[in-house]
Amino acid sequence: MKSQSKTFILDPRLENDTLLISSHASLQIRLMNDQRWPWIIVVPEQLEVEDMDDLDIEALQALTKCLSDISAALKRMNICSSTNVATLGNMVKQMHWHVVGRTQGDANWPGPVWGFEKAVPYSKEEVAGFMANFKKEFRV
Amino acid sequence: MKSQSKTFILDPRLENDTLLISSHASLQIRLMNDQRWPWIIVVPEQLEVEDMDDLDIEALQALTKCLSDISAALKRMNICSSTNVATLGNMVKQMHWHVVGRTQGDANWPGPVWGFEKAVPYSKEEVAGFMANFKKEFRV
Repeated sequence: MKSQSKTFILDPRLENDTLLISSHASLQIRLMNDQRWPWIIVVPEQLEVEDMDDLDIEALQALTKCLSDISAALKRMNICSSTNVATLGNMVKQMHWHVVGRTQGDANWPGPVWGFEKAVPYSKEEVAGFMANFKKEFRV
Repeated sequence: MKSQSKTFILDPRLENDTLLISSHASLQIRLMNDQRWPWIIVVPEQLEVEDMDDLDIEALQALTKCLSDISAALKRMNICSSTNVATLGNMVKQMHWHVVGRTQGDANWPGPVWGFEKAVPYSKEEVAGFMANFKKEFRV
């Protein structure tokens, strides 16, 4: 009997909290559904990858270039003055990176965004607007 | 009159909160003086670099390889089960990356480490012990 190769399945919590923007070189680029911050989630479509050191060097370099390009895109959108970039994995083990636009005086400035009060979802129109602007600036 | 080239100077808050472990390919590797978590800070010795996208591609790749190697080293030390890797820059603008060993049930599990209560400094003996163990595992 042939062994079945496993398929990448997005963690249900990430599926619930985020919206797919695009898939790019085996990296899912998703929008956190929380209008308090411009907040992008990047998920490598790889099995059994949790910590940064679980990635091989090629995947690590492609990922970090993508994160850097997202940081630059958020700043070009003029919706933040700096970015936080992080991988935590305390709540959801499946590797996912956060690129969060920050601005002095934002919802939890200068504290971290994680675990701070409740998400404020976008309307459908706001999601469409954000995605269109993001895609325009994220030209890599 | 010749213009003077600027010299890299570590931010005073980073200088105060961390202890130098080693300098490696223009990256300062420092220990956060907080025994609540095994917590390494990496500072690229570059002027005017704040966000991830301020780094050129060579510097970005060298940095992220270093962060990944530190993550692996902390796990080999058997003092954590996973790592958080992040750059924030909300309090200190000078770019610095955090690699923090996490364990279920630690001081603020599963919340973030930033801004959580007060640091618990190491004794001199504990610092020496940590650094010796870290250097043994961080063989790159």
